[in-house]
Amino acid sequence: MTVTKGRFITLEGGEGAGKSTQLRRLAEALAARGVEVVTTREPGGSPGAEEIRALLVSGETGRWGAVTEALLHTAARRDHLERTVWPALESGCWVLCDRFFDSTMAYQGYGLGLGRDLIAGLQTTALGAFQPDLTLILDIAVETGLRRAASRHGGEDRYERMDVGFHQRLRDGFLDIARREPERCAVIDADADLDTVQARIWSEASARLGLAP
Amino acid sequence: MTVTKGRFITLEGGEGAGKSTQLRRLAEALAARGVEVVTTREPGGSPGAEEIRALLVSGETGRWGAVTEALLHTAARRDHLERTVWPALESGCWVLCDRFFDSTMAYQGYGLGLGRDLIAGLQTTALGAFQPDLTLILDIAVETGLRRAASRHGGEDRYERMDVGFHQRLRDGFLDIARREPERCAVIDADADLDTVQARIWSEASARLGLAP
Ligand SMILES: Nc1ncnc2c1ncn2[C@@H]1O[C@H](COP(=O)(O)OP(=O)(O)O)[C@@H](O)[C@H]1O
Ligand SMILES: Nc1ncnc2c1ncn2[C@@H]1O[C@H](COP(=O)(O)OP(=O)(O)O)[C@@H](O)[C@H]1O
Ligand SMILES: [Mg+2]
Ligand SMILES: [Mg+2]
Repeated sequence: MTVTKGRFITLEGGEGAGKSTQLRRLAEALAARGVEVVTTREPGGSPGAEEIRALLVSGETGRWGAVTEALLHTAARRDHLERTVWPALESGCWVLCDRFFDSTMAYQGYGLGLGRDLIAGLQTTALGAFQPDLTLILDIAVETGLRRAASRHGGEDRYERMDVGFHQRLRDGFLDIARREPERCAVIDADADLDTVQARIWSEASARLGLAP
Repeated sequence: MTVTKGRFITLEGGEGAGKSTQLRRLAEALAARGVEVVTTREPGGSPGAEEIRALLVSGETGRWGAVTEALLHTAARRDHLERTVWPALESGCWVLCDRFFDSTMAYQGYGLGLGRDLIAGLQTTALGAFQPDLTLILDIAVETGLRRAASRHGGEDRYERMDVGFHQRLRDGFLDIARREPERCAVIDADADLDTVQARIWSEASARLGLAP
């Protein structure tokens, strides 16, 4: 679908796991080693996808049905890839992305119950075989993550407001994804202070991507 | 996916074929015979789908890539079905819809070149086996349709502004769809005055749906 020259690394996990915080730290660590890094996020990351994001992350929890929601996330993803990620990878940059298709699998596939097949089929239709070189799954207890997330707020909390059962299915879903794709996915225990989690991420990433520790 | 009691009738065709005009007339004719009718349109037809519509029908022609566009139309469709069409059919109403999945097939599949398989697969993922009881395809020469459409304007002209080759592929696409599914689709020659086209539509619809002429 596209010739990639840079590496594509995604950070995944539930609300408040530390994805956005650790993504910035990983980007700085890579940049300090001379890697040209682009950081981005989903849903969003391109002008069109940010417009779609606005429909997804605020408003009532029942605003969209699960299938509609999966389609909207996937539409935003396709735009983000075409307009931001693929051009950056082609120019040789490394792209660090805060959430990617594993979030659609975890949230809509496991959390909202659409199942693996529907989500996997949709991703293949929309993206072909494209996938991350490395996915870091930040794992944390649901209550700890939601407590961290609550301290941060800014209105984009539609998913945070879903019930605890939903968030438990999410966490289990991410762990199941990692079990099924151990080559691509590394689970990071995110229940530690920021520096410790950062060190765990660097240890996995540098080993798997062949960087000097 | 849903138990339908009413009938679901879609009007399809290129820009300016007369879909919106004839849909109103068909609705009146059915209502005069005592049928409870709901009229609606795509993209749109429910609050969420109308928000998605706003992203699709205005702005630059190249605003979205073809795959993104197909996903957005399909997201809007799923919302429209869940929130508007399926409840109306279940309550026994007949639903007349201005454009439906054949427009996605014609515009994104044939017009923008994504092909039949991708679009058909996407519709199945999103809608299951649900389909119209009757589809009226209004056929007209590209130039005639675009001339009619230009006289109407209101800013929602993103597709109209696409090139003539695109509109020719559309027309051919709709005719190909009708050839493949003659049970569901009736082609109506729309190059005549309003009353003549209306009579042609009524003749097909009443025969196919078992209504007194
Ligand atoms: N390891 C950690 N220990 C304590 N607080 C953390 C840790 N990681 C992140 N936080 C804080 O928790 C909140 C959510 O972190 P964030 O990176 O936004 O999570 P996510 O992007 O996964 O939702 C932020 O206020 C952040 O500063
Ligand atoms: N049979 C017809 N002859 C002449 N003008 C027509 C005919 N059908 C529709 N029109 C006019 O053409 C324009 C486009 O019709 P419309 O129903 O909006 O088409 P569509 O919904 O298929 O784009 C409107 O101004 C309408 O009044
Ligand atoms: Mg975050
Ligand atoms: Mg119209």
